[in-house]
Amino acid sequence: MIYFAGGWFTEKQNKLYDKITRILKEEFSELEFFIPRDLGINLMEKSPEERKLMMKKTFALDTGMLLVTAKTDGFILAIIDDYDVGMVWECGFAFGISLGKLPIVTYTDMDYGLNVMLRESAIAHIRGADELRNFLQRYVFHGANTQALLEIAKDYQNFSEKVF
Amino acid sequence: MIYFAGGWFTEKQNKLYDKITRILKEEFSELEFFIPRDLGINLMEKSPEERKLMMKKTFALDTGMLLVTAKTDGFILAIIDDYDVGMVWECGFAFGISLGKLPIVTYTDMDYGLNVMLRESAIAHIRGADELRNFLQRYVFHGANTQALLEIAKDYQNFSEKVF
Amino acid sequence: MIYFAGGWFTEKQNKLYDKITRILKEEFSELEFFIPRDLGINLMEKSPEERKLMMKKTFALDTGMLLVTAKTDGFILAIIDDYDVGMVWECGFAFGISLGKLPIVTYTDMDYGLNVMLRESAIAHIRGADELRNFLQRYVFHGANTQALLEIAKDYQNFSEKVF
Amino acid sequence: MIYFAGGWFTEKQNKLYDKITRILKEEFSELEFFIPRDLGINLMEKSPEERKLMMKKTFALDTGMLLVTAKTDGFILAIIDDYDVGMVWECGFAFGISLGKLPIVTYTDMDYGLNVMLRESAIAHIRGADELRNFLQRYVFHGANTQALLEIAKDYQNFSEKVF
Amino acid sequence: MIYFAGGWFTEKQNKLYDKITRILKEEFSELEFFIPRDLGINLMEKSPEERKLMMKKTFALDTGMLLVTAKTDGFILAIIDDYDVGMVWECGFAFGISLGKLPIVTYTDMDYGLNVMLRESAIAHIRGADELRNFLQRYVFHGANTQALLEIAKDYQNFSEKVF
Amino acid sequence: MIYFAGGWFTEKQNKLYDKITRILKEEFSELEFFIPRDLGINLMEKSPEERKLMMKKTFALDTGMLLVTAKTDGFILAIIDDYDVGMVWECGFAFGISLGKLPIVTYTDMDYGLNVMLRESAIAHIRGADELRNFLQRYVFHGANTQALLEIAKDYQNFSEKVF
Repeated sequence: MIYFAGGWFTEKQNKLYDKITRILKEEFSELEFFIPRDLGINLMEKSPEERKLMMKKTFALDTGMLLVTAKTDGFILAIIDDYDVGMVWECGFAFGISLGKLPIVTYTDMDYGLNVMLRESAIAHIRGADELRNFLQRYVFHGANTQALLEIAKDYQNFSEKVF
Repeated sequence: MIYFAGGWFTEKQNKLYDKITRILKEEFSELEFFIPRDLGINLMEKSPEERKLMMKKTFALDTGMLLVTAKTDGFILAIIDDYDVGMVWECGFAFGISLGKLPIVTYTDMDYGLNVMLRESAIAHIRGADELRNFLQRYVFHGANTQALLEIAKDYQNFSEKVF
Repeated sequence: MIYFAGGWFTEKQNKLYDKITRILKEEFSELEFFIPRDLGINLMEKSPEERKLMMKKTFALDTGMLLVTAKTDGFILAIIDDYDVGMVWECGFAFGISLGKLPIVTYTDMDYGLNVMLRESAIAHIRGADELRNFLQRYVFHGANTQALLEIAKDYQNFSEKVF
Repeated sequence: MIYFAGGWFTEKQNKLYDKITRILKEEFSELEFFIPRDLGINLMEKSPEERKLMMKKTFALDTGMLLVTAKTDGFILAIIDDYDVGMVWECGFAFGISLGKLPIVTYTDMDYGLNVMLRESAIAHIRGADELRNFLQRYVFHGANTQALLEIAKDYQNFSEKVF
Repeated sequence: MIYFAGGWFTEKQNKLYDKITRILKEEFSELEFFIPRDLGINLMEKSPEERKLMMKKTFALDTGMLLVTAKTDGFILAIIDDYDVGMVWECGFAFGISLGKLPIVTYTDMDYGLNVMLRESAIAHIRGADELRNFLQRYVFHGANTQALLEIAKDYQNFSEKVF
Repeated sequence: MIYFAGGWFTEKQNKLYDKITRILKEEFSELEFFIPRDLGINLMEKSPEERKLMMKKTFALDTGMLLVTAKTDGFILAIIDDYDVGMVWECGFAFGISLGKLPIVTYTDMDYGLNVMLRESAIAHIRGADELRNFLQRYVFHGANTQALLEIAKDYQNFSEKVF
């Protein structure tokens, strides 16, 4: 399972979210994705009481799905543009709970630099939709397993020079 | 040990960083703090080769210090204003590696709302310098241990209504 | 949070489930419970395709809630009568992921004996509804925290002689 | 090492235990197995005092062997018929301590359905002695390592429709 | 449970082992100890084949007992004189698997200095049999739980100046 | 990354340290090593106050580097001659935190026997500089990844008969 991490709280974020998830679903339907936005939860529309419960469930479901991802030869595909807080937290959590064994692949459309923690915990960095297609095609072609992922990742090390 | 997490990449961040670390060092010198900025590392001033090594060392030192923090009855004090990427990553990492046993206390000067992952992984939320002083005084008074921290935390649940 | 583990797949199981959860909700409303049956999921009523997704979500939500339980000074209350498979798995998982730090309290109405793995991973054993009330009253009275739980547990060591 | 999990507390269980362990030892002697029944421990024959110590040792030995299994490219082979409590606990523990990285392969002679937690934590499901032989032959042929196991497992996904 | 770590491979080691375990068993019989030498295993007396199996079992039992120790409010009491290799490994393992939550108390009769890794992972340092008696008496008096241990440990910080 | 573990506290240790690290750096420059001695820290030369902080930093950096090693397809190369305390602790820590998934390769120049814990946690044993060259050449040739390491390790099982 591929855990898709990214924000959908601004129009710009939503547009990028649309673009990438469409590629995933339409062009790579043989892979399995967890796409949090598809759950359709909008916390701010709830009453305070409902919200409290919903937050706990969302937290449990997302962390639990990261456990599932760790099990099934999966990885995190993280859109770093605008640094969605949930995305960053999930990358830190994934690294911590798996001691770096749950691979993180970062994506940028806009040459975003990476914070040093995010940089060191990622195994590959992808720039733009075409590179993403290329990356996933090779991943599928080589069996869609962790060994293949680690091998392919060596060719996508074009991390930004901007670090902080 | 108290691990201080927050950014120092803008003037505004630096001012808040100054304010809080001064309180910690001057008013609570009986406590032990890890304050990453004190290491004085500026990655962008290094050559690419040095930077690469320095990034690895920084990552190792920071994650290692979080292990030390987990051991010594410690906690994370995280400034959430402006959502520094490193701070968010460290909170996720700390929750993951300790399964929630390394307590996270969030701080805001400006009523920042919390992302649901950050919200659910924090045990207390502090608003402003005076509340921080009050919180730490009680922590010291009750023995500066985990049991005391968890007890005191119940009185600092004034999380923002803004969640996302 | 108290994670309630037990089966609801037979009439007998459902009756016991009703009895205990009523006590929890009505007499201990100041405590927070996670009661899986309340989610109302019946896997066998789904189409195969929906079922597959629903199973993954259920697994993620339940394991994620165990992480939440580990964080919030919580414990597992496990009904062992009839040895529900999910309950046993959850106890094993909780012990493994927390290395025994997430406390497990077992409950029986019928002097069920305990398998050695379940026995050694539990910190207390409760027999019947009255003993449960008594146990939880003391837990609430002493602050509803882990330290209190471990202390009280010493008085509920009346494990069955039947082990296997 | 392959950790064999299953019960030997009824005649029926013992017969199945005999059948499978004979296949393992006689036909796959190049593999290494941990077969708990071979330790010859019968807790009910001990005095209460001896039993208490023996339970602790049994627990330590079994959980420790699961650590050894996690290290040595191993997996759990779990007989699910009759849902032995120890077997279920060990599967939960293994998943929890390894975050799903210690593979679990389930076996049934009688089309037993799987509880959702057991189902989601297993990577393959084997039906009957012949399928087991076939599975292990391929595992040995491809090098008896984790990568081979995960690859072969894709062909043994014939899980029961009965889930609960 | 208190896990006693130390070597018994030389006459000098055996004498110290005798002295300390006699104190533990005779003067603190209300506490529970795991004392590896009591298992009576001498690997060099076995045939190579038996030895191989026995090594695996010893490893499993010892690491499993450390899991039991982590669960039951326990700690490691480690004799550092002569730096037994098994003792050092067990301290490292305990710190790693519990992220520092399984307390380590070091003991010396001869002002042995501590390696930095051992030093930083220990919470207290005891010098001589009388100090050990004093330490354990206070531990028992205050309830023999983790909270008490951490509190008492603050008074036994007389680590050697010799570090390496 | 390959984490090099061994002592440099005696002349003899330093000579062996020199010999091996020269091979690593000069003959395998395409691999990445972490060589603690290169940090140039000498704790005994510091003032007590500086030493205290330096010890904490050293501990954090070393444990953090082991996390980095766990992530990057790495392993520990441990010189066992003279049983440096830090080396043994690091092997135990690495096994514990990764549950045996961070591979340990032991090295001896002098047919040192292995303690049972060290023995069971190691995946390969190398005798002398030539065997080390041979081992690393094969590792590089097969892609320098974990799968290759585990495969090659099967040919380096020449552990000493001396166990304790």
